[in-house]
Parts: sequence; structure tokens; C-alpha cells
Amino acid sequence: MDQREKAFGWAARDSSGLLSPFSFTLRANGEEDITLKVLYCGVCHTDLSTIKNEWGNAQYPVVPGHEIIGVVTDIGLKVSNFKIGDIAGIGYIAFSCLSCENCSSNFENYCPKLVPSFNGTLPDETTYGGFSNKITINEHFSVKIPENLPLPGTAPLLCGGITVYCALKNYGLNRPGLHLGVVGLGGLGHLAVKFAKALGMKVSVVSSGGKREEAMKILGADSFLVRGNSEEIKAAQGTMDGIIDTVPAVHDIVPLIGLLKTHGKLLMVGSPDKPLELPVYSLMSGGKSIGGSMIYRRREGYARNAKVCCCTSYNSRSGGGANGLCQYCYGAT
Amino acid sequence: MDQREKAFGWAARDSSGLLSPFSFTLRANGEEDITLKVLYCGVCHTDLSTIKNEWGNAQYPVVPGHEIIGVVTDIGLKVSNFKIGDIAGIGYIAFSCLSCENCSSNFENYCPKLVPSFNGTLPDETTYGGFSNKITINEHFSVKIPENLPLPGTAPLLCGGITVYCALKNYGLNRPGLHLGVVGLGGLGHLAVKFAKALGMKVSVVSSGGKREEAMKILGADSFLVRGNSEEIKAAQGTMDGIIDTVPAVHDIVPLIGLLKTHGKLLMVGSPDKPLELPVYSLMSGGKSIGGSMIYRRREGYARNAKVCCCTSYNSRSGGGANGLCQYCYGAT
Repeated sequence: MDQREKAFGWAARDSSGLLSPFSFTLRANGEEDITLKVLYCGVCHTDLSTIKNEWGNAQYPVVPGHEIIGVVTDIGLKVSNFKIGDIAGIGYIAFSCLSCENCSSNFENYCPKLVPSFNGTLPDETTYGGFSNKITINEHFSVKIPENLPLPGTAPLLCGGITVYCALKNYGLNRPGLHLGVVGLGGLGHLAVKFAKALGMKVSVVSSGGKREEAMKILGADSFLVRGNSEEIKAAQGTMDGIIDTVPAVHDIVPLIGLLKTHGKLLMVGSPDKPLELPVYSLMSGGKSIGGSMIYRRREGYARNAKVCCCTSYNSRSGGGANGLCQYCYGAT
Repeated sequence: MDQREKAFGWAARDSSGLLSPFSFTLRANGEEDITLKVLYCGVCHTDLSTIKNEWGNAQYPVVPGHEIIGVVTDIGLKVSNFKIGDIAGIGYIAFSCLSCENCSSNFENYCPKLVPSFNGTLPDETTYGGFSNKITINEHFSVKIPENLPLPGTAPLLCGGITVYCALKNYGLNRPGLHLGVVGLGGLGHLAVKFAKALGMKVSVVSSGGKREEAMKILGADSFLVRGNSEEIKAAQGTMDGIIDTVPAVHDIVPLIGLLKTHGKLLMVGSPDKPLELPVYSLMSGGKSIGGSMIYRRREGYARNAKVCCCTSYNSRSGGGANGLCQYCYGAT
């Protein structure tokens, strides 16, 4: 008897960006697998880039979604971390080899055999993401979600949140008192602001404009610079210890490098589809560097109890908690 | 009475690259100054780029030369580190403010008020470099040269040598056992190979070709890769902890980034006159970074007694010492 469950999702069939109903079959729940009923799923720019085939790697039909919150409905015999009824989260990674040099050092995000949780190919199946009603995954690539977290606001932590948190941590830009620039105030950027403020840093948002109030009043940034305003940019030259750049489109990084102090670091977590221009002297003249970081490693956890989540800017229910904190994420509102 | 000494040098008058005889007047030797009779001077690519005005900053007449060895002929009343007759070295820096944040943290190479030892402007004089018979400088920006070092081979350490040494040290790529790539085997590159070998590292030279024997037999590199040989480059993918790139011309850095292990660092110490292309994903997909480093800070010293110098590849008198070492620099020959 085929024990595989039927599932339903929303799939892109071509690069138009449109999704349409899609029925598919889950793999049988294996010994180390858990199956979730999907409750919530975030939208990450990677979903958009993939369904539109901007990176040339779309394997249609593509069911996007990799910031997934669900309730466990089935577990395999060897599953040790979950029981039926638990709330679980799934991020970008559905598989890594767990034995290569990267996996052995807990950087499974750089495993050459990594398979993403959507638009990926495992031996027995194509991976379909969280824009669906069910998903099966090896328990190693899922995390238990604490009951005190608000589920809708938690979902975007599973990729956007952990991506910026890992980048800041692994490049040493997570220390109180440092001055951080955050470029772009989308899914990743607004979470970077919240993490950095929660970590005790001074935060300047650098954006193409129009989000000053959101950045400063809602998210608590200390200052806001319009990228195209040369006066504002000039006045802030050489003031930042680091910058996290979340912009996934081609843009000029020279003014950003100028904002850095000596030995400052520009962290790139967005992936433009064309190369950027890099005038080497702009790095040399200040001992500066540009670093890349991709998604996350499980060891960082999923910012459990870190008292930041993303509900503030995207959820109309945010705020209203005790001590001026958000009732869902405990962050400043 | 004008106490300023007459001096003679070789100056570029235009961007032709030609030097011609040039008479000038030294500044009076101040209280903190020493004056040297120039004995030896290295040739750095910065000299060539400047006299040809490739960076648009030439202030003709330009007397190049900033890897200067000389004997002290005059000292000011407050000079404490030198006496007449000492051998002294001068590198790229003739002046920094000694009070800004960079100077205070001993990174005077990033002082915004830095004045180079040639083609620079001090309040009372233009700086003329070591292609001359005399030079006056504040003692703070000169170093005493130990008597056991061979003077001709020591000169290039004063910019080329200390530039690569500082870059490796400040980015943590100076540890025994690490695998270092050295791109370009000119003035900086060959010294990077010698430092890295002396530091106990595995060294692969990546060059446009034609210097395999020099790299491996004379300088002691462990392997040699031709930049344009895609098979050689492909076979070495993901094997290097770091790369120091000394090429001062536009070139493709993507294959170099590919040579790096996860979290590997590409250090840029050569300054191409046009921007390089940077595909951000090549950094993101391995948590890799690109860092710049410029010249040196005095605190690193000038590799005193480090038993490496540059005489091996540029001085026909090298070699011939005890235990197979060079008689002038004590390096392996």
C-alpha cells in the first residue's frame, strides 16, 4: 500500500511570478522524519527570485516558502526531538551531508550537497515549500518552537531572521556599543535593526528613502540615511563599525564602504543577479573588508527567546504588551 | 644664513615614465629630524604608477623611491633613536598626525593626514623620495636597520615586504599550517612567498605563468598554478585558507575566490586603476571575504631578524651562506 500522503500547495509554473493550485504527493514519513501540518509561512525574497527564475535555477513547478511553522502530525521511529502535537519550524535547509568539513564544523549552510526545502532535489523527491498544507522533513533540519513565541511573527525568523543574526555573529558585529549600518529595510533589513538594537548596538538605517518613520519610530533605529542623499551620506563617513547590506539588486557599494571606520566590515546577505563594481582602493585605504554570509547554521538556534521577532512592522496586532513591549515578540514597539 | 642643504635626485617631469637629473633643497634638519645619505633604494610599483600619473595624483617634478636605506649624517636636538653614522630605513610614510583615532591605535597608515615620503606635501616642503642622494625625515618615521642585515636586500622590505607582512598578520593569515595563495610574483608577491614559508605555511603561487621555477625552486613555494589554466585552477578549488593578491591591474577575482575554503579571505594589496567585478554570491556561498590592506604600521617593525629578505630573486649575489641559506638574508635559496 502506498503510504504517501496527498498534499496541496500553490506553485509557480513559469517565470511570470503567478502561483496556481498544485496537488502533489509527500514522501513516506521515514524513520528520522517528521511531517507537519503547515500553519504559517513567511515570504522571503529568495522565494520571489526563484519563482521568477531570476537566478536561472527554477525547477517548475516550484512551491515556494521556507519560513515554515507547523504542528507535528507524524514522526518516524527514530525521531527524538519531537512528539506529535509539537510546534516545529523549518527554514531553508532540507538536507546536508552532515559529514563534510563544513557540516562537521557546524557550518552545514556551506555543505556542497545542501538541498533547500523548496525547489530542491532529494533522491526520492522534489522539495516543495511551505506554501502548502503539509511537509515532511528529516528532524535534524527542523527546530522546536517554544510555546511562548507568537507563531505568525516567528516564521520569518526561520530564514530572514537567522540569516542576519548569523552574519552579524560570525563577523563579530554583535557587540554592544558598536555602530551598525543596515542597508535596505525589507524582510532581512528590518530584522537586522531589531536584532542589533536588542544586542545593544547603535543602528543607522541606509535606505532608498520613504521608510524613515518605520525605521526610527517603529523599529527603534538611531538614525536614517537616504542612500541617494550625498549630504547625509557624506556627514556619516567613517562612522560605522560594520554594515549589513540586504539589497538583492545591483547597487553602488562605494558610498557604503565610505561609511565604514578603519577596519570596518561590509556584510553582504543579498544576492544581486549581476556583479557589483569594486574599486579595490576603497578597501585598501582603510583596511576594510567585504564579507558574504548565506542563510544560517543550526547551532545558532533560531534566536529562541531573544525577544525580537518581526511582527512589529508586518503584523497589525503588534504592540500592546506590558512595559511598552510588543505583546507577541516582547520587542520595543 | 640658509642652513638648508642642496640635494640631487632623479625626477619625472611628466607621465612619460622617464627620469632626468633634478636639483633641490632639503628642508633644514629640525629638532626631531634625521638626515640620511641615501645608500640604496628599492623600486616599488607605486613609484612607477605615480611617475606615470596612473592614479592622477602626480605633482611633478616627482622624485620616486620609498624603500630607502641610508646612513645618518645629521640629527636634531631631540632625536633619541639615532646617532650620526647609524644605518636607517625610510618607507612610504613621511608624516602622520600621531593623534587621530588611527594613529592612536598604531594604524598610522590609515591616518587621513598621512603624507608619503615622495610626491607628498608637507607644510614647508614637497617630499622627494630615495632616488636622490639625501633625505630629511622626522625620526618617528624612520627605523634603525640592524647591522646584520644586507642593505641592498633590506631596502625592499621597507614597503613591499612590510606591506605583505602586515596584511597577512592583520587578517590572521600568518599561522603555521595554513595554506596561502600568492597571486602575482612581482615585488610584493615574492616577498609574500618568503614570509609565508618562513612562517611555516603551505604556499601556492598563482601567476600568469612563466615563473614556475622561480616560485618553486628559488622561493620555495609548494605549488604553482597558472591563472589562465582552468584545469589547474579547478583542481585547487576550495583548498586555500587565504590568498594575498598583489596584482595592481584589472583582473578576474572570481577564480581566486573559488580557490578559497569556506570562510577563506582574499587580501588585496595591489590597487588596479579601475573597479573589479564582484559577484556577491561567490562570497556568500562560502562565507568568504575580501579585505584590503595598505602599506604598514610601524608597530609591526620592519621584519627585523625575520630571516627573510628579497635578495634571493633580485640580487645575483644571493645564496652562498652556511646551511644552504643566503649569505645576505639567511633565507632558503
